[in-house]
Amino acid sequence: MPGHESYAGKEVLITGGLGFLGSNLAIRLVELGAFVTLYDGLISGLGGNFFNIDPIKDRVNLAVADVGDRWAMDRHVGYQDIIFNIGMHSSHLDSMIDPVFDIETNVVPQIYFLESVRQYNPEVRVVYIGSRAQFGRVEEPPITERSPLNPMDIYAASKQAVEWYHMLYNKICGLRATSLRLGNTYGPRHQMKHAKYGVQNYLMRLALDNQEIEIYGDGSQTRELLYVDDVIESLLLLGENEQCIGEVYAIGTEERVSFLDLVKEIIRACGSGSYTHAPWPEDRKAIEVGDVITDFTKLTAHTGWMPSTTLSDGLKKTAEYYRRFKQHYW
Amino acid sequence: MPGHESYAGKEVLITGGLGFLGSNLAIRLVELGAFVTLYDGLISGLGGNFFNIDPIKDRVNLAVADVGDRWAMDRHVGYQDIIFNIGMHSSHLDSMIDPVFDIETNVVPQIYFLESVRQYNPEVRVVYIGSRAQFGRVEEPPITERSPLNPMDIYAASKQAVEWYHMLYNKICGLRATSLRLGNTYGPRHQMKHAKYGVQNYLMRLALDNQEIEIYGDGSQTRELLYVDDVIESLLLLGENEQCIGEVYAIGTEERVSFLDLVKEIIRACGSGSYTHAPWPEDRKAIEVGDVITDFTKLTAHTGWMPSTTLSDGLKKTAEYYRRFKQHYW
Repeated sequence: MPGHESYAGKEVLITGGLGFLGSNLAIRLVELGAFVTLYDGLISGLGGNFFNIDPIKDRVNLAVADVGDRWAMDRHVGYQDIIFNIGMHSSHLDSMIDPVFDIETNVVPQIYFLESVRQYNPEVRVVYIGSRAQFGRVEEPPITERSPLNPMDIYAASKQAVEWYHMLYNKICGLRATSLRLGNTYGPRHQMKHAKYGVQNYLMRLALDNQEIEIYGDGSQTRELLYVDDVIESLLLLGENEQCIGEVYAIGTEERVSFLDLVKEIIRACGSGSYTHAPWPEDRKAIEVGDVITDFTKLTAHTGWMPSTTLSDGLKKTAEYYRRFKQHYW
Repeated sequence: MPGHESYAGKEVLITGGLGFLGSNLAIRLVELGAFVTLYDGLISGLGGNFFNIDPIKDRVNLAVADVGDRWAMDRHVGYQDIIFNIGMHSSHLDSMIDPVFDIETNVVPQIYFLESVRQYNPEVRVVYIGSRAQFGRVEEPPITERSPLNPMDIYAASKQAVEWYHMLYNKICGLRATSLRLGNTYGPRHQMKHAKYGVQNYLMRLALDNQEIEIYGDGSQTRELLYVDDVIESLLLLGENEQCIGEVYAIGTEERVSFLDLVKEIIRACGSGSYTHAPWPEDRKAIEVGDVITDFTKLTAHTGWMPSTTLSDGLKKTAEYYRRFKQHYW
């Protein structure tokens, strides 16, 4: 891994800063000597959790406000060198049950955020977290940045629109944006209260509690699981690389696993839990994307990124974390 | 043209009912014996104009309210057989100057509209007006429904998102939606106050007023101009054809014309006006999509639609209309 010396002394804003990705990124950035502002709306049911930033709580600025709150955001964007725009809900299923929630959480605030940036810091560097779901069910694998867009739920359609908005703000005001279309990520600091997003994380809760995990269908669908440290590494690389401006990246790993084997690995890492098979619920089946196989050549070519944590190691570290800090997540 | 007997006695709601497409469609539907409800927010600067429905004003229901106004919309969706969802702004340039206006006019109300439909008439037939701009600048012409999505302005990105929302409501509640990705359309009843959308119409105002038309660059970019009656015909066909549910259609004409020749044709049809060349303004150049060449085979195959009005005839009819009713549009 390169040293990321470029972050030392930089002002960095992270939306969703108290969440899973935001807090892990913040911890890393503080280590690197960046001045970090965490911005989080603490929306009920999402991943914001003060305990996530326990190791750095005295070394960051914290703004608790909605991403779309111009009054609050305007005060923070002006002096930033880089913004990691991570604050969002990521529930596919919720977006289909309550599309208004999706638009109000993931779309409208983003336009206000971009307007805030336009007014006070138009050419700032922004790394936006897109979603693998923007590709939907891919008819001709592997997934690359050139795969057709085929969002299968409201969440994914909205994420694509907001990615486009980011890229178009380059025309509007010179914004220097990059988007990372992120898939399944796991690791410490994910919310563990429900399975609505990051189901791979919730499964670990079930296993640690020695519960039975339900696998819909035969569990043969292929998944790529990224350990959060590897994702943070990709974000750091994207944020400091000029070549990545205006570009969109797919990300994945060559270590693929069936959903069934993932569950078995989780049970092994936890030393507890069991599984059973169950029929697909209709609502989940309708938005299930099938096998995930990603060609992340472009990301590697532009930044040198490669995942470095095996699933087995990552799950072990994750199980250790939650075993130790269970009371803050359960 | 088929007879469209299926519309006789049907309840039909048209959002944007006082606008260009909405009013022309309403007049046709009233002739066909449909019970038409016009729904229009009369948003300042958009195309809503009471004079547009002068020929049918005593034979339609009229609701003046925002498309996203649940209180108003809820009262109207329940008893509809078909909804033509046309109400929107269509200014590419405005969407880049004021993206908040774009989201608030073309995105947020649409989700509330769809929620209203879900609650009171979930399986209603909806024909949504998308935009050719969703394709953006097409690297490999001709444009077909399978061309990559490449929106070049906020308007186009939003239109794509809302098209996806419509299609996804099929999963959410069984909505039977179709989208027509419409390009440049001209004819009677377009707003003539400014050139922000439907520039081809505004050019006719300039010519009728014997003004000089500015052509940016050499005017060699290819355009396909559809006469409004041909577009209305396509909407009627899409609305009564079960095969079109869940489908997206590109539309165009084989009668292509350079922008320069279009201007010459307009001047000829009006018998007045002149033109000159001018350099491209930066903001317009940034969102200019280049040549437009559409393969509308799918639309023809599914519905039998073909354009039947030549540019020369259509422009003559249009010039006659505005000459006669100038005071209602200038």
